[in-house]
Amino acid sequence: MNNERTEISSLGEFGLIEHLTKNIELQNVSSILGVGDDAAIIDHFGKQTVISTDLLVEGVHFDLAYTPMKHLGYKSVIANISDIYAMNATPTQLTLALGFSNRFSLEALDEFYDGVYAACEKYGVDLVGGDTTSSQKGFIVSVTAIGEVSPDKYVKRSGAQKGDLLCVSGYLGGAYLGLLFLEREKKIFMESPGVQPNLEDESQVIGKLLKPEARKDIVDFFGRENLLPTSMIDVSDGLSSEILHICKQSNLGCVLYEEKIPMSEEMKRAAFKFEIDPTVCALSGGEDYELLFTIPQSEYDKLVLNEEISVIGYMTAPEEGANIITKGGGKHVITAQGWNHLNQ
Amino acid sequence: MNNERTEISSLGEFGLIEHLTKNIELQNVSSILGVGDDAAIIDHFGKQTVISTDLLVEGVHFDLAYTPMKHLGYKSVIANISDIYAMNATPTQLTLALGFSNRFSLEALDEFYDGVYAACEKYGVDLVGGDTTSSQKGFIVSVTAIGEVSPDKYVKRSGAQKGDLLCVSGYLGGAYLGLLFLEREKKIFMESPGVQPNLEDESQVIGKLLKPEARKDIVDFFGRENLLPTSMIDVSDGLSSEILHICKQSNLGCVLYEEKIPMSEEMKRAAFKFEIDPTVCALSGGEDYELLFTIPQSEYDKLVLNEEISVIGYMTAPEEGANIITKGGGKHVITAQGWNHLNQ
Repeated sequence: MNNERTEISSLGEFGLIEHLTKNIELQNVSSILGVGDDAAIIDHFGKQTVISTDLLVEGVHFDLAYTPMKHLGYKSVIANISDIYAMNATPTQLTLALGFSNRFSLEALDEFYDGVYAACEKYGVDLVGGDTTSSQKGFIVSVTAIGEVSPDKYVKRSGAQKGDLLCVSGYLGGAYLGLLFLEREKKIFMESPGVQPNLEDESQVIGKLLKPEARKDIVDFFGRENLLPTSMIDVSDGLSSEILHICKQSNLGCVLYEEKIPMSEEMKRAAFKFEIDPTVCALSGGEDYELLFTIPQSEYDKLVLNEEISVIGYMTAPEEGANIITKGGGKHVITAQGWNHLNQ
Repeated sequence: MNNERTEISSLGEFGLIEHLTKNIELQNVSSILGVGDDAAIIDHFGKQTVISTDLLVEGVHFDLAYTPMKHLGYKSVIANISDIYAMNATPTQLTLALGFSNRFSLEALDEFYDGVYAACEKYGVDLVGGDTTSSQKGFIVSVTAIGEVSPDKYVKRSGAQKGDLLCVSGYLGGAYLGLLFLEREKKIFMESPGVQPNLEDESQVIGKLLKPEARKDIVDFFGRENLLPTSMIDVSDGLSSEILHICKQSNLGCVLYEEKIPMSEEMKRAAFKFEIDPTVCALSGGEDYELLFTIPQSEYDKLVLNEEISVIGYMTAPEEGANIITKGGGKHVITAQGWNHLNQ
């Protein structure tokens, strides 16, 4: 028994994962890609299997005070298959393990599964296995998603090249604003249970939080256009954090233009209500499940007509670092101030 | 919102799983076998992928008062790959998702991973992915194991035929007795912290609980002997419960002989110390991770020389029910009084 005690918080999440997995040596020739990307890749005689897993814990990842069970079920699936799409793969199966205390009724579980099945049906994924167990406290969800991809089509975080264009799908920051509204309403409700919330104006950002979608359409578009990104990651922890993953794993720097970051009008309006900078929300808010990727400049023509994709910057030599050029023309180093940071 | 409330406990674990998964329609042709067996099967262009998942929650599945973290890591892997072996498949990869409160130090996590890696190395399995997150309370482990099998070799729970021999590997009941000893010592320690436990005589049953092994050797033996069981399941919830799964899913009855149930001398001695019937421990104690399977009578010659395998009964027509013939010659219906029952 080791008597030292190192606080896990001293490493941070990514430092912890690095620490725990640094000595892994893969033993099976079928293990093509292990820990360290959105998903792992396993060879199966020609096609490759992609696998990703997530653990969601009540009170840490979701608050059932304002998250309907059906939405939680839906989102649990989306969060995982988003990792599969981020490998440029197609999700096909998933397993679901649930833990719950006796606070939960069968009807509550049914609603959760309704959401799971709705997402499975929409994305053509089969729920093939799972485990249910009791927990001493709260609701625990573990989803593992399986997908498939041709060996020459999968996209890692590490393949970006100097000069590649940095692109992102959809709009960013919405889910974080949705969370702020719901947290505020919860607080009001706790203080004055009679007050009815009016969240209609915020339905877009709240929808982004409670019923996110995975960007199957973007991966389908890559297939149709025969466009292969050089690197890709899904935006679950905030744009800054994901950009830094691509820079680190591709050993590059980048330039990001603030004015190019896609933000919806609703999100910007919502940010102003909270008196926070929409750019900060877009950079640091998590759970948008958009795709961040790089492509060679020569492929620009293929995506210019897709309105769901924004070019937000380009990759540079590593010694130039990861920088953002603000609207005012200033240049700042990008730091990984993700979701957790904003929550503090 | 549905306002009815049905207590989940009114269904039981297996009733709950049936309820939640009864409407699943598999959408992908690659989804060969879904919910309802030890593992799911996914076709990958010739070979088939087997996948199984488990969720383990502190205070429900393990007590860290007497479970060293390294053992917990080892056992978390064993419990899952045992499900893969129970499909007559070979485990190849796994993903691991962990949740933990700030009560846990980095050193504690390192010990857990030491156990995970030890099991991975012993069984030739690669840890290829995972997730780490905080929890509000306690330690949560979710493991998903992947394996492979030829399409003509996988073994479901549902393939047993009337007249087949019912067989089991190793000895049963040991892990349950190990648990009783550790629970007793914990109680003594809580009451008189100075007392040093003497558990040396019980090292076999305690080892069975704290460092179980998966029966790779039995699956390897099947391969060498070209012996294909007609059905198989791993003994994680107790022999009775697993026998009833095979009977139900194969739509058969069975006869089990009490005198044939394999029990070690150490287990029997330990049971007598607690003044409980060793047969009850073997029937109802869980976590032995032995393999329970059926073979055609014509294959009997192939396994008669393997001392690790006991023939304990045979399968009958469904209308005869599932029965145990006691040493005294009495005949009783087998009931699913598993692990949880004994814990009450």
